[in-house]
Amino acid sequence: MRNAIIGGIGVITFVAGYIQGKKERVHWNYDFHKPIFGKVLAATPFTPAVTNNQPTTSRISQIMKYGFPGLENIRSFDDYVLSYDRRTRVAYWVFEHLTKENIKSNETVDRSLCEFKPDESIHPYFRSLNSDFKGSGYDRGHLAAAGNHKSCQKHVEQTFYLSNMAPQVGTGFNRHSWNRLEKYVRKLTKLHNNVYCCTGPLYLPRKESDGKNYVKYEVIGANNVAVPTHFFKVVVMETVNGTFEMEAFVMPNQPIDDSIPLSSFQVPPDSIERSAGLLFFDNLSKEKINKINGKRK
Amino acid sequence: MRNAIIGGIGVITFVAGYIQGKKERVHWNYDFHKPIFGKVLAATPFTPAVTNNQPTTSRISQIMKYGFPGLENIRSFDDYVLSYDRRTRVAYWVFEHLTKENIKSNETVDRSLCEFKPDESIHPYFRSLNSDFKGSGYDRGHLAAAGNHKSCQKHVEQTFYLSNMAPQVGTGFNRHSWNRLEKYVRKLTKLHNNVYCCTGPLYLPRKESDGKNYVKYEVIGANNVAVPTHFFKVVVMETVNGTFEMEAFVMPNQPIDDSIPLSSFQVPPDSIERSAGLLFFDNLSKEKINKINGKRK
Repeated sequence: MRNAIIGGIGVITFVAGYIQGKKERVHWNYDFHKPIFGKVLAATPFTPAVTNNQPTTSRISQIMKYGFPGLENIRSFDDYVLSYDRRTRVAYWVFEHLTKENIKSNETVDRSLCEFKPDESIHPYFRSLNSDFKGSGYDRGHLAAAGNHKSCQKHVEQTFYLSNMAPQVGTGFNRHSWNRLEKYVRKLTKLHNNVYCCTGPLYLPRKESDGKNYVKYEVIGANNVAVPTHFFKVVVMETVNGTFEMEAFVMPNQPIDDSIPLSSFQVPPDSIERSAGLLFFDNLSKEKINKINGKRK
Repeated sequence: MRNAIIGGIGVITFVAGYIQGKKERVHWNYDFHKPIFGKVLAATPFTPAVTNNQPTTSRISQIMKYGFPGLENIRSFDDYVLSYDRRTRVAYWVFEHLTKENIKSNETVDRSLCEFKPDESIHPYFRSLNSDFKGSGYDRGHLAAAGNHKSCQKHVEQTFYLSNMAPQVGTGFNRHSWNRLEKYVRKLTKLHNNVYCCTGPLYLPRKESDGKNYVKYEVIGANNVAVPTHFFKVVVMETVNGTFEMEAFVMPNQPIDDSIPLSSFQVPPDSIERSAGLLFFDNLSKEKINKINGKRK
């Protein structure tokens, strides 16, 4: 961690301070920019919550243990971390740390009490709203899955910020194959003590009939929220003997037959890195990764 | 400046230190991430040049006087500053400070000695190459204009890094109307002591025949370098009495008739902010801006 931060030349000094366990309550206020045009209000600073009087500092440190994929507009919630893309109004990535214990459902937690809500920490120019999704035909699809955070009402509620949502095809994708993938990732905690999961959108090029490659994606609502063409998940499992296994998936944002095995969506992790403009698990030495997509290296 | 930096919660501590005039030679090394896959080498750190034994610290401070439009992957050259978008392989924005004196051509400067070259400070996964542009039909179009930096051979050479290039339509755009706009901005230094200019790409949505809005842009070369649909320039002029005037332009990346007046490309600055995901001249109080696009507010 330290090396990356030093390498990061102090740009993430604050993050580092936060990660390294300072006890003071810190106000996250990345959107310090105030607009000089228009009648919008400056974004309300986001104050990280303190759960059961425990600061979330060490939790964030744990979630981000193996490096930040990028450093743009980072939001830290109690149980996941997010980087926001102000141009597309969809996160660049979200990061989660799953264990057998922390994904257990707590019977007092009630998902039906959760409401999709705008993330007030995002500047109004770049903030997606429920009205953007309404009538679009797309689900408000969780990036950090609600099902990974059911141990605590507050945690699951925080996954309902619209900054954690991407427009997803509902039937056949969000409610089916993508959900299958989310369940699969949770299952990995049965075999491995620590599972780190990075999830995000992709906007992949396609060759058209003129022989040229184009990136094309729909945008919805008054705020032009981008509809990603694909989504990725990159997962690292810490094995008991201190080595690591990695799996990387890309799924198209479209109905997918439930009978297609998840393994068909595995891709080399660097293909996601190149497309997304991100670098995953950068603090993790390559040598320590024993398996990629189930195959010994 | 100070307020913004404090607001920026120390994320830009290093930048602040740099701006606030520390004398030590600083190594910019934003791409501290090292890939764990593939056989690429880690990016070579970019070392800022020192011109005539003068550190460029104060120059950067001056260029960025009125705020950073965003904070992603910032590169600081001797006479301009750039923020790099790793996903599109085209800068988010470049920032220049122009005066009557600093845009004067020095007769020892020879533009023909300049070569387009890859920016080694960008991680190889995200770095555009000359081969990406070759055969694409697009010019390697400067964002920070070469013509703004002809007072010093080194300055003009630094505008030839491919990180400062975007694929631009040549005839009718890069070599004509966009060049007209660049010349116009230089002319503003005749009337105003200080001219600040922010330039960048846009990827604007368009309604298609199905009634939905889509963002669509070509990508070229093995590195999928994005061809922006439009480009923007936002200019702030400091008047002699301490007030400011602002002009904001958006031009489509296509042949434009030379007879169309530049004023037809003026747009409300906030429309660019919303589309680009950026905030311009954020450290400048709105009250101090007397005119926007030639009109008194």
